Amino acid sequence: MVVVGVVMGSDSDFPVLEDAIEVLKQFQIPFEVKISSAHRTLHTTIEWVEDFEKRGGKIIIAAAGLAAHLPGVVAAATTLPVIGVPIKSGALEGVDALYSIVQMPPGIPVATVGINGARNAALLAVEMLSLSDCDLKNALRDYRGRMARQVEEKDKKIKQQLQSR
Amino acid sequence: MVVVGVVMGSDSDFPVLEDAIEVLKQFQIPFEVKISSAHRTLHTTIEWVEDFEKRGGKIIIAAAGLAAHLPGVVAAATTLPVIGVPIKSGALEGVDALYSIVQMPPGIPVATVGINGARNAALLAVEMLSLSDCDLKNALRDYRGRMARQVEEKDKKIKQQLQSR
Amino acid sequence: MVVVGVVMGSDSDFPVLEDAIEVLKQFQIPFEVKISSAHRTLHTTIEWVEDFEKRGGKIIIAAAGLAAHLPGVVAAATTLPVIGVPIKSGALEGVDALYSIVQMPPGIPVATVGINGARNAALLAVEMLSLSDCDLKNALRDYRGRMARQVEEKDKKIKQQLQSR
Amino acid sequence: MVVVGVVMGSDSDFPVLEDAIEVLKQFQIPFEVKISSAHRTLHTTIEWVEDFEKRGGKIIIAAAGLAAHLPGVVAAATTLPVIGVPIKSGALEGVDALYSIVQMPPGIPVATVGINGARNAALLAVEMLSLSDCDLKNALRDYRGRMARQVEEKDKKIKQQLQSR
Amino acid sequence: MVVVGVVMGSDSDFPVLEDAIEVLKQFQIPFEVKISSAHRTLHTTIEWVEDFEKRGGKIIIAAAGLAAHLPGVVAAATTLPVIGVPIKSGALEGVDALYSIVQMPPGIPVATVGINGARNAALLAVEMLSLSDCDLKNALRDYRGRMARQVEEKDKKIKQQLQSR
Amino acid sequence: MVVVGVVMGSDSDFPVLEDAIEVLKQFQIPFEVKISSAHRTLHTTIEWVEDFEKRGGKIIIAAAGLAAHLPGVVAAATTLPVIGVPIKSGALEGVDALYSIVQMPPGIPVATVGINGARNAALLAVEMLSLSDCDLKNALRDYRGRMARQVEEKDKKIKQQLQSR
Amino acid sequence: MVVVGVVMGSDSDFPVLEDAIEVLKQFQIPFEVKISSAHRTLHTTIEWVEDFEKRGGKIIIAAAGLAAHLPGVVAAATTLPVIGVPIKSGALEGVDALYSIVQMPPGIPVATVGINGARNAALLAVEMLSLSDCDLKNALRDYRGRMARQVEEKDKKIKQQLQSR
Amino acid sequence: MVVVGVVMGSDSDFPVLEDAIEVLKQFQIPFEVKISSAHRTLHTTIEWVEDFEKRGGKIIIAAAGLAAHLPGVVAAATTLPVIGVPIKSGALEGVDALYSIVQMPPGIPVATVGINGARNAALLAVEMLSLSDCDLKNALRDYRGRMARQVEEKDKKIKQQLQSR
Repeated sequence: MVVVGVVMGSDSDFPVLEDAIEVLKQFQIPFEVKISSAHRTLHTTIEWVEDFEKRGGKIIIAAAGLAAHLPGVVAAATTLPVIGVPIKSGALEGVDALYSIVQMPPGIPVATVGINGARNAALLAVEMLSLSDCDLKNALRDYRGRMARQVEEKDKKIKQQLQSR
Repeated sequence: MVVVGVVMGSDSDFPVLEDAIEVLKQFQIPFEVKISSAHRTLHTTIEWVEDFEKRGGKIIIAAAGLAAHLPGVVAAATTLPVIGVPIKSGALEGVDALYSIVQMPPGIPVATVGINGARNAALLAVEMLSLSDCDLKNALRDYRGRMARQVEEKDKKIKQQLQSR
Repeated sequence: MVVVGVVMGSDSDFPVLEDAIEVLKQFQIPFEVKISSAHRTLHTTIEWVEDFEKRGGKIIIAAAGLAAHLPGVVAAATTLPVIGVPIKSGALEGVDALYSIVQMPPGIPVATVGINGARNAALLAVEMLSLSDCDLKNALRDYRGRMARQVEEKDKKIKQQLQSR
Repeated sequence: MVVVGVVMGSDSDFPVLEDAIEVLKQFQIPFEVKISSAHRTLHTTIEWVEDFEKRGGKIIIAAAGLAAHLPGVVAAATTLPVIGVPIKSGALEGVDALYSIVQMPPGIPVATVGINGARNAALLAVEMLSLSDCDLKNALRDYRGRMARQVEEKDKKIKQQLQSR
Repeated sequence: MVVVGVVMGSDSDFPVLEDAIEVLKQFQIPFEVKISSAHRTLHTTIEWVEDFEKRGGKIIIAAAGLAAHLPGVVAAATTLPVIGVPIKSGALEGVDALYSIVQMPPGIPVATVGINGARNAALLAVEMLSLSDCDLKNALRDYRGRMARQVEEKDKKIKQQLQSR
Repeated sequence: MVVVGVVMGSDSDFPVLEDAIEVLKQFQIPFEVKISSAHRTLHTTIEWVEDFEKRGGKIIIAAAGLAAHLPGVVAAATTLPVIGVPIKSGALEGVDALYSIVQMPPGIPVATVGINGARNAALLAVEMLSLSDCDLKNALRDYRGRMARQVEEKDKKIKQQLQSR
Repeated sequence: MVVVGVVMGSDSDFPVLEDAIEVLKQFQIPFEVKISSAHRTLHTTIEWVEDFEKRGGKIIIAAAGLAAHLPGVVAAATTLPVIGVPIKSGALEGVDALYSIVQMPPGIPVATVGINGARNAALLAVEMLSLSDCDLKNALRDYRGRMARQVEEKDKKIKQQLQSR
Repeated sequence: MVVVGVVMGSDSDFPVLEDAIEVLKQFQIPFEVKISSAHRTLHTTIEWVEDFEKRGGKIIIAAAGLAAHLPGVVAAATTLPVIGVPIKSGALEGVDALYSIVQMPPGIPVATVGINGARNAALLAVEMLSLSDCDLKNALRDYRGRMARQVEEKDKKIKQQLQSR
């Protein structure tokens, strides 16, 4: 059964979302990917959201650039938590998408991450799911531990580099 | 028969849209006002748009603040021209709404006017309608003429004020 | 007879406007292209606008970068609908052009699309023209349908890619 | 047992967070309020976060203005979902806080809502909790239904007002 | 004979321009004030500029808010130096006007001063005129001297205030 | 005798200022180039400005990037007209320089042109000088005429290109 | 002997700088206040800086709004640490001052604090001075301790308020 | 004994900080480099800061991009002067980091330099240290002198280039 839905408005957003998919795989969260536009395929988008919820889906990660209405439209069609990822594209380089996603009106929230922050979107989903899943919680703590060790290793490496100059 | 639909996400946007209504009345364009949210009443919004088009409506003026998805969602649900009015509200004072409305992705346009530019939204609708209505065209030219004379009167007045100092 | 005029301040804006021209051709809208600057050839610009309207032209798409006064000057010289396209150029990357075009004062509207949004400018013109042209209306609906199918095909393709990994 | 922790850097942020508290009360979510600064009381903040998690707390709503490091510091100290609320204050009116909260580096997410978006922060917490609580899910749907009806009532009222003019 | 023309798009800009008028009076520069809009009275504006130059006018100070095309249109119609004053107004508080005025394309310059910087606009005109007028040059140096003394007096006053606390 | 001084903070600004030099040469305005920093060589800068004025120099074009204090410091040291050119450089791409130059406090004006607008800076100097030089005035009008013809030639060329497709 | 110099471009900046003065008094740091403008009294400013350094002054806090060149000019005239305080004023509300102060070119640093951040400017000076003054170091730690206790007291108070509702 | 600590959140920030290291070496200031993240290794970061202070360290240069909490967290953990360097990275190109670092709340200052301004960060540290070190003071003055001479040499070179054209 699918737990997380990753929806984006265009296949050009896919390379950014690979980061999210990698994290979901790492934590063994079943997911599905959907390309559907808030504007070009509005009805399909709404139907997919409603169907995803009926099928037992839990969390939706929605990514979009420019006017970036997708996360808000998805959030309007469900009471599941929706995580919005502003995509860097066009002349405004994602500031438009950030504002369009984060400045939702009172009543319909979208949990927004940074511009192109797909990895954090997936980690946020994992955090939500780990509220009722101890194994996931432990996996998340291990992940944090590994990240910390990577920082420490980089610290050692740079010190060695500086000494050997 | 209604020609222009004026839709807004919240009744707090209404004072700004009074400017549009005044212009539509002046040009005797039949209009209807609709409060409907892209997020709180997504399905109602889409149904209203589709019904408005079926009833022979011609142009939709859609206003919204903050994430401001309403004009884009309306535009996604119809091939009628949609005019978007970004409303000044919240901490970003309408820049968020402007970006959310004007930066629509290729394929689904929204004709955007300035922040709180409701009067221009209505005049744009009049311009579109006057493409196939000579009387409206003439009324529009008269309107422009009156505006020009007002500027000239202000010019005279200020010169008199300066001389009488 | 020409229906849409596409005017730009400089031939360097032409590559962006190719998107508009492609759409106009696709919908078989007769158009003409004009290079004329609001600053370097102010009188020529105004004369062209007035002549375009006299010759029965219907809609003007005006594109400009930087201070981007062309759409506003064109709009001041006609009561035809004017669609403004902010061009991305210079250090501010089109934000200057966007503000210069969209923030028109009350009385003289410009229907603004996104930065480099030439394709949407043409589609907006088509929407306006289809208000009194059923064939164009149908063509526009077909266009929307094709766009929707393209999204659905991309959706299928990405799912296949993910399964075959 | 406390489920949601609402932490803010200063008591001057409290009036904004009242919106969150109201929602949490409405949904009968046990919560606690904590004033603790990422800068003035860094150690206390970290201790409170770690203690909150040990005591079985589930979700933290963290609000801050200006440099707004609180949500990020809280997120660094726990694997619980952290919801960040940028507070409008100072010369930059919350844009600084928004960027400081939403632009978290990869690895430590903060679920960001709009500037002063405390109500949405609480609703986001409710959505997360309703993933494993059917009653809450139903309450959330009722809440959405009431919001929709409010929009429809406002729509009726404005139509009456316009007719009675 | 008039030397400086002060043109603005609307009488609402006049209070800001009082600062310019005060400086011009102080330096006894003959000036005229003109209200004329780049959009509402485009032809009148161009005629006034051309007539102003024919009558021997030397420098034009042009002020406008929002899309602020007036200084650029004036500059396009003359080879006299044009000084642009962005007016603070509307939701963008003058940033739109600043960009619209300062970002002129190559070939047609506008000497731009700060937002609402009418006093500096007039001083800039005085500096230009003093290039060929020794009396004006001396008056300008006296003005600078008085400003310097004012700063020094304020410095004394604040020191006295601090000592007497 | 030198008429225009072109000062910049760093030799890295020189390529941008080539546009100004080309215009000054074209109009046969004697000029000198000076590299001097408002910060690294503050005293030298002030001395050069004072000396330039004593030697009969008329106008100073000052260019700088980043904090861009050079034009303001130059303007503080002379009553000659100072034209400021914000240079695009660093992470803020010239917005910092634009604000630092154009937002001068009341009393000491800088005539600001667009970011990297060196060509317009030189043309502005020519406009100022042509106030008391008929030959220069005529040369300026010829220059404008040539620019207009270039636009018209580009217009013809693009029409030919479109027909021959 | 004076240790800290507090210089500002205008007496209108004084209310903001009261916060700095209060801190300096609290830590018993001898200071002097100077009103001197980088533009209106450039030479006086430089002389004051050089004299301040000769008299044994240690640190300069320089505040300015708008183009805000004062901190940079001060820094150019001394090798003492200069702390810059951007003042909120004018249409850009201090963003111009922030960029003008913080974006100093390589070689001449200004230690910048937040917009209107006068209190932090003084605390930064105290931190620098406490590098070679144990008593000051202890006073600083006490100050931090008091701030922490204030946060804790506010935390208690808000909890009491919430319980007594 | 180490005097300056240079801490950064990621080894990707290192190339920018090379400029700081070069300056510290030039002035023979003993320093250490530390990679430690405010988010991934929060406890390690705090421990390092506290240990650095105990070991007699004097000044910390902290660099970070994006949400850039590192300088603020470091400042919260010590009363040593902390110099913050916003790193240009991600879609907002360092504006996010600048705001996150400079807009610290009252009580805990960070001495902020320009985006990627690592060289100035180190020079600021040298200025602070030279308050109680005459040799360093003299070295700093020499450094300034060399910079001034470099500007003068560049001035000569450009003049030669221009003459030889």
